[in-house]
Amino acid sequence: MHINGDRLWHSLMELASIGATPKGGNARLALTALDGQGRDLVVGWMCEAGLSVTIDKIGNIFGRRAGRNDDLPPVMTGSHIDTQPTGGKFDGCYGVLAGLEVMRTLAEQGVVTEAPLELAIWTNEEGSRFVPVMMGSGVFAGVFPLQTALDARDSEGKRVADELAAIGYAGSAPVGRRLGAYFEAHIEQGPVLEAEDKVIGVVTGSLGVRWYDVTVTGMEAHAGPTPMPLRRDALYAATHLMQEVVKIAEAFAPHGRGTVGVVNVHPSSRNVIPGAVRFTVDLRHEDAEKLGQMDARFREACAMLAAGDTTGTAVEVEVREVQSFKPTPFATDLVQRVRGEAAARGYTHRDIVTGAGHDAVYVAGVAPTAMIFVPCKDGISHNEIEDARPEHLEAGANVLLGAMLAQAGPGTAAD
Amino acid sequence: MHINGDRLWHSLMELASIGATPKGGNARLALTALDGQGRDLVVGWMCEAGLSVTIDKIGNIFGRRAGRNDDLPPVMTGSHIDTQPTGGKFDGCYGVLAGLEVMRTLAEQGVVTEAPLELAIWTNEEGSRFVPVMMGSGVFAGVFPLQTALDARDSEGKRVADELAAIGYAGSAPVGRRLGAYFEAHIEQGPVLEAEDKVIGVVTGSLGVRWYDVTVTGMEAHAGPTPMPLRRDALYAATHLMQEVVKIAEAFAPHGRGTVGVVNVHPSSRNVIPGAVRFTVDLRHEDAEKLGQMDARFREACAMLAAGDTTGTAVEVEVREVQSFKPTPFATDLVQRVRGEAAARGYTHRDIVTGAGHDAVYVAGVAPTAMIFVPCKDGISHNEIEDARPEHLEAGANVLLGAMLAQAGPGTAAD
Repeated sequence: MHINGDRLWHSLMELASIGATPKGGNARLALTALDGQGRDLVVGWMCEAGLSVTIDKIGNIFGRRAGRNDDLPPVMTGSHIDTQPTGGKFDGCYGVLAGLEVMRTLAEQGVVTEAPLELAIWTNEEGSRFVPVMMGSGVFAGVFPLQTALDARDSEGKRVADELAAIGYAGSAPVGRRLGAYFEAHIEQGPVLEAEDKVIGVVTGSLGVRWYDVTVTGMEAHAGPTPMPLRRDALYAATHLMQEVVKIAEAFAPHGRGTVGVVNVHPSSRNVIPGAVRFTVDLRHEDAEKLGQMDARFREACAMLAAGDTTGTAVEVEVREVQSFKPTPFATDLVQRVRGEAAARGYTHRDIVTGAGHDAVYVAGVAPTAMIFVPCKDGISHNEIEDARPEHLEAGANVLLGAMLAQAGPGTAAD
Repeated sequence: MHINGDRLWHSLMELASIGATPKGGNARLALTALDGQGRDLVVGWMCEAGLSVTIDKIGNIFGRRAGRNDDLPPVMTGSHIDTQPTGGKFDGCYGVLAGLEVMRTLAEQGVVTEAPLELAIWTNEEGSRFVPVMMGSGVFAGVFPLQTALDARDSEGKRVADELAAIGYAGSAPVGRRLGAYFEAHIEQGPVLEAEDKVIGVVTGSLGVRWYDVTVTGMEAHAGPTPMPLRRDALYAATHLMQEVVKIAEAFAPHGRGTVGVVNVHPSSRNVIPGAVRFTVDLRHEDAEKLGQMDARFREACAMLAAGDTTGTAVEVEVREVQSFKPTPFATDLVQRVRGEAAARGYTHRDIVTGAGHDAVYVAGVAPTAMIFVPCKDGISHNEIEDARPEHLEAGANVLLGAMLAQAGPGTAAD
């Protein structure tokens, strides 16, 4: 059985026409009127595909296709349709519309599965307008309370609860329940599949993340009259830690990641030796123990720098861990279903971990979960030039179809 | 002959009471009403010391003590009394009031020199309100035209010419003329004299300066999904150049200086690999040829980084030289007068170069020039906590007195 790749593509393009940007991207921020229009469009398609639609109290949308044994916990797929302010056409929307295409295909073919199937649209995955990010799946998985999410406000002071009501998606269903399995298809948002010319990424789990704010303090002084040996240059000191972040990640290849994304120099004057430098550090690994080792090595580098062992000059180094996410391995049997389905359909594939956050990462805390990645052009996402090839999107949806069918129990033609 | 250290200190404190800041510093920006009050105070003191006062068209003030041969070009001293917004009590004011103390002492003792003596207060040395910086001495030395300076505007659009008139210092004397010699006393604004426990810095010249804006461009990408080998991290690349700036300066010890003072990272997000980094570079040396070698080594490092020879990953590196000042050696015979006077009076001393800009650096382009440094606490200047010890200030003024007397021709008691 195959999904209809053309229909998938056209649905993606039609959804992308709501909040289209001049550069070919999408701006459909969570719970705006445009998000409401997007939801209405997809909910209409859900109904046309024979799904019964429910909205829960945080605005998550579920379209259900009954199973032969409808008391079984559902096999769910889904993603999100809200975007970044200068987002692309595929991030999130692909997962929702690939799931829709599965439902459409089963309806066309008259196939009924043993367990019920559901298609989810999670509220506010991007977090661009409201935090917490991954809001709908986070409440569903019990990561934070419903009320926290409903009370969140945007920069203009508008509340999630009010904005949900304004677009007609303040539902009444309780948030969270038992799932049999959860699959999510998504563009990779990275360069690996394209670089290796693979069609399907079999996602084995998500990287753990540790975020730090680091402040290195030396002594600010005039760049002219201060000889090199008398300096305590906070930036020169800090560059050694910035390089160490990369070296640590490289030492924990292939799944280590190390990034310094923000640097603030004080006082930031061309002819003043920096007195203080604040920068962010982002360390990632798929293995919790190795991530702990990366953390230890980084803290050791900070201590050596502070003591003057690295540069010969002591400075103050303050390390504050501001947030962390544990590595989340996906369910082995579901991952194997994705891998097997890709192989059976003759798609080139490789195992991969997701470094980005997804609704699936939260859902994995309460249900067996797996993800399917397809390549995106140049690995670029969260950008209006985000792009993906129709044949790759079609392949990913076919793998999703096969994996859901296998998981939900052999499909039979309805009487 | 000795100046009066107490009188010098009390004059410094009285001037500092005009525009005093809560933290013990001074805010007397160029051509403000407070600058006018400060000028009026010092001009009054000049008149009391028997000097005849002239104002030139850029507002420079000259107090003249006639010589026996009054046709000889004058031996001048001076500095500035405008301050930074959060400036100290000694930067500039010390040079002016040390010169005043010389004049007061000669008047008390009834000494007349062969050549005339003059005390200058240069307009707008700091450049905090109006650029160009070192405005009065710059016009005097022909570095830029009078009209450019008169037309300069502050951030509120107020013009130098109008503000000079408003405080009563739009003079009529032509700007610039022949000088026999120029001496300037100043706090060091650096840590060298204090670190070596010396009282007098014999300034042999000023460091040359080359300023650059450097942009390193890689590829911005998501910190999670992008494996280390596929990254083109502009910040990681840039840190190698930032370190090289310091290493180059160290390789050209003791007079090499290398500083990165400003860093801007794009897009500056915690979980995005930087796609571009712009930073400033400040290279200094007292020897023009060596400064050229430093420039060449820096550009070579940029080329190697761009080619991928430094990190294994090619990036774009753009280097733009935005401004430069040539090294300015001071007049050997005047420098020797300062050195000899310090030795004769038994003050510990050492040769030193100035890394900061001073009016003397411009005047050196049109007249034999030397400077006298005294220590400042912790090398800190351009700061309200700037501080200096009365005995050091007294010593510097005594050296100034001796050097001016020797230069202007043996003093004799007036008839």
